[in-house]
Amino acid sequence: MNLQKVSDRLGITQERLERLQESILKRSSWPEPPLMRFEKSSSGIESGTVIFENNEIVFGYPKIRRAMILGPSLRRHFGDRVAVEEKMNGYNIRLASVNGEVVALTRGGFICPYSTEVASRLLPNEVFEKNPEFVLCGEMVGPENPYVPKDIYPTDTIDFYLFDLLKKNRRSTLGIYKTHQFAEEYGIKATAFFGEFRIERAYEKIMGIIKHLGKRNREGVVIKDPDNKLAPLKYTTSETNRHDLEIAFSYYNDYAIDFFLSRTIREGFQSVEWNESEDKRKERAKLLGESILLPLVDTIQKKMNGEQIVQQVQIRVKSLKTAREFEYHLRRSGMRTIFEEPEPNDDGYIIKITRLIMSTNDKTQSLLEGEPW
Amino acid sequence: MNLQKVSDRLGITQERLERLQESILKRSSWPEPPLMRFEKSSSGIESGTVIFENNEIVFGYPKIRRAMILGPSLRRHFGDRVAVEEKMNGYNIRLASVNGEVVALTRGGFICPYSTEVASRLLPNEVFEKNPEFVLCGEMVGPENPYVPKDIYPTDTIDFYLFDLLKKNRRSTLGIYKTHQFAEEYGIKATAFFGEFRIERAYEKIMGIIKHLGKRNREGVVIKDPDNKLAPLKYTTSETNRHDLEIAFSYYNDYAIDFFLSRTIREGFQSVEWNESEDKRKERAKLLGESILLPLVDTIQKKMNGEQIVQQVQIRVKSLKTAREFEYHLRRSGMRTIFEEPEPNDDGYIIKITRLIMSTNDKTQSLLEGEPW
Repeated sequence: MNLQKVSDRLGITQERLERLQESILKRSSWPEPPLMRFEKSSSGIESGTVIFENNEIVFGYPKIRRAMILGPSLRRHFGDRVAVEEKMNGYNIRLASVNGEVVALTRGGFICPYSTEVASRLLPNEVFEKNPEFVLCGEMVGPENPYVPKDIYPTDTIDFYLFDLLKKNRRSTLGIYKTHQFAEEYGIKATAFFGEFRIERAYEKIMGIIKHLGKRNREGVVIKDPDNKLAPLKYTTSETNRHDLEIAFSYYNDYAIDFFLSRTIREGFQSVEWNESEDKRKERAKLLGESILLPLVDTIQKKMNGEQIVQQVQIRVKSLKTAREFEYHLRRSGMRTIFEEPEPNDDGYIIKITRLIMSTNDKTQSLLEGEPW
Repeated sequence: MNLQKVSDRLGITQERLERLQESILKRSSWPEPPLMRFEKSSSGIESGTVIFENNEIVFGYPKIRRAMILGPSLRRHFGDRVAVEEKMNGYNIRLASVNGEVVALTRGGFICPYSTEVASRLLPNEVFEKNPEFVLCGEMVGPENPYVPKDIYPTDTIDFYLFDLLKKNRRSTLGIYKTHQFAEEYGIKATAFFGEFRIERAYEKIMGIIKHLGKRNREGVVIKDPDNKLAPLKYTTSETNRHDLEIAFSYYNDYAIDFFLSRTIREGFQSVEWNESEDKRKERAKLLGESILLPLVDTIQKKMNGEQIVQQVQIRVKSLKTAREFEYHLRRSGMRTIFEEPEPNDDGYIIKITRLIMSTNDKTQSLLEGEPW
C-alpha cells in the first residue's frame, strides 16, 4: 500500500493510517483481489470501506438514519423539496471494477463470490468499460437472495437495483438524478422513483406511498435531497416492521436484542402519527401481538416435535466454484449452512442451502428440557 | 476489618479478599452503620453481600432461576416432592440487626432508610432480641412500595412478607418450613404457602395455582425443595408478564432491552405448554400486542401534549429524617425524583414522590421533534 496516496484519499494522516492498520483495518486476501477493510467506522470513514492493493479505495455507503415520526422529520431535515425512492428489502452491495474485474462488496467490505457472479451476469460490460471509476450501490433482492429471500419483487431469482453511485477514492455520492440517469443510459434497473415533492405536500404524498407499499408488503421509502446536499432518511411500512418481528421471533435467540425493540417502538410512533381510531389501534396491537407470539410458538412447537430450527434458501450459479466459494464466505460470516447437491438447470446449477439457526435451536432445546432461563 | 475472620467466613483466602477490596468490594458509609458491599458476584459470593465493621457478614440472597416450561423443569430439578409458595411482586429486602439496630439491606447491599423505618415499625422487637444472628429475607409490597407500587395485596400502605431466613456469616438458607414456623412464632406475615406436592402431581397443581393467581393479577410461585437441598425455581403468570411489559413500554427507553424480550419469550413457552387452542392463542397474542402498543402510544401522546413522563408514588414515614435520607438513597441509586411537601397524617407524614423517567422523556421528545432513531 502506498501510505501517502491512501492516507490522502482517506483524508487522514499517514500516522493515523498506520495506527488503523494495527487495529480496525483488517486484511482480507480471499477471494481475489486482496484488500484491506475497515471493520468499524473511524475518523469519519464508514465501516466497510475497502482499500485495494492498487491503492484504490471504495468508501462504505453511508448509513441512512430513520425517521421515527415522518412529519417533523421532514420539516427538520430537508429544504424546500424532497425526492422519494423505494427502499427495497434485500442486501446492500457495492459493485466496482478492480483491475478490470467486477467485484461485489458487502456492507462489511468482504467480496461476496455469489453476488459477484450475479452482478457479472446482470451488468452490461460497457458499464465499467466506460466508467471504470464508478461504484454502483444497490440492493440484491428476490427469492434467491440467500440472506433475505423475498417473493415480493418482479424476479423469480435475484436481481440488482441501483440506488446510488459513488466514485472510487471519493466519499460523496452522486445522488438521485445522476443515478437514475445512469441506470437508464445503461439499461440497469434502479429502485422505483416516486417523484419529487414540495416539502409542504411531502408528508401527505409519502403517507400515501407508504400505505400503498404496505399493501404490497414492500419495505418503505428513502427520502432524498434532490440537490444531494443533505443526508437521506428512511421510513418503513408497518407490514415490514411486523414481518421483521416474525422472522426475529422465529429465530429469537439469533437476533440482536434491540432489533425487537426498535421495530416495536416504530409501531407506537406510527400509530400516534396516523392518529388512529381506538379500533384501528387495537387492530394494530392484535397484528403486532400475532407477529410476535405466533412465530415464537411455531418455533417452540417445531423443536418440541424434534425438528431442527432452520431456514431454507436457494441460490443459482453458473459455476460450481462460485457455490464453493460462497459456502466458505458464509462460514467466515459466522453462518452454519448445509449446501445440498447442485441440481443442473439451464446453463448453471440450483443449490438449496439449509441455514442452521444454531443459537435458537440449542436454546429452545435446552429450555424444553427444563433448563431454567 | 479483621481480614482473617472475614475471609474465613466468606470462604476465600485473605489475599483474594484484599484484591476484592480493590475492585468489586465497595465501601458505603451512609446510612449508619458503615459497611462494605459486593457490587458484583465473585468467588461464588452473591452480589449484595455485605460486611459490617464488626466483621459480621450478611450474604446476598441467591438469585432464583426461572422455569420457562414448567413440566420438564419440575422433573429435571426436583426430587420426589416440591413445596410451593407465592412469589410476591415488590422489592426484596434483607433485615438484620447490627449492634442492636435493625437495618434493611437492598439487593445491592445498600441500607434503605425507608425500608429500615418500615421494618422497625412492623417487626416485633423480640424477633432480633431473641435471634440476633438471624437475617429475615422478604418482600416489601403494597401501594406505598415506592419501586413497584401495587394494589393487589391486602395492605393500604406497605407490608413485609417473609420468604426465607439466613443466619449472619452463613450463606445457606433455612428453607421453607423453618421460615413459616418462625413467622408463626413471632406473628410475622410470610408469603402464602400453597402446599407440598408429590412430583407427579405437581405440574397440574401448580398450573391450577398459576391460573388462580393470574386471575387476581398476582405474580406467580416459587417452587422449593421441602428438604431445602435443591435450589428453588420461579414461574410466573401471563398477567404479570404482560403487566411488566406495560410498564416497560410506558418507559421504553429506561428499561434494559432484555427485559422486553425475556417476558415475551415466556408467553410463547406458556402458550405451547398449555397447548392452547387457535382461538386462545390469538387471544393471548392480542393481549400481548395491547400490553406493548397501548402503553407505548400513551407515552408518546402524553409527550406530544407537552406532559412529562413521570411515575407517581407515595411513601408514609414517621420521621422526616427518614424521608430526607430516602431521597438521598434514591438519588444515589440513579433515580431523579421530586419529593412534595410532607402531609401530616396520623403520627407521621405522607409524602408524594414524582419520579422522572428521564431517558424515555428525552428520547420521546427528540423523536417527536424529528430527530432520527
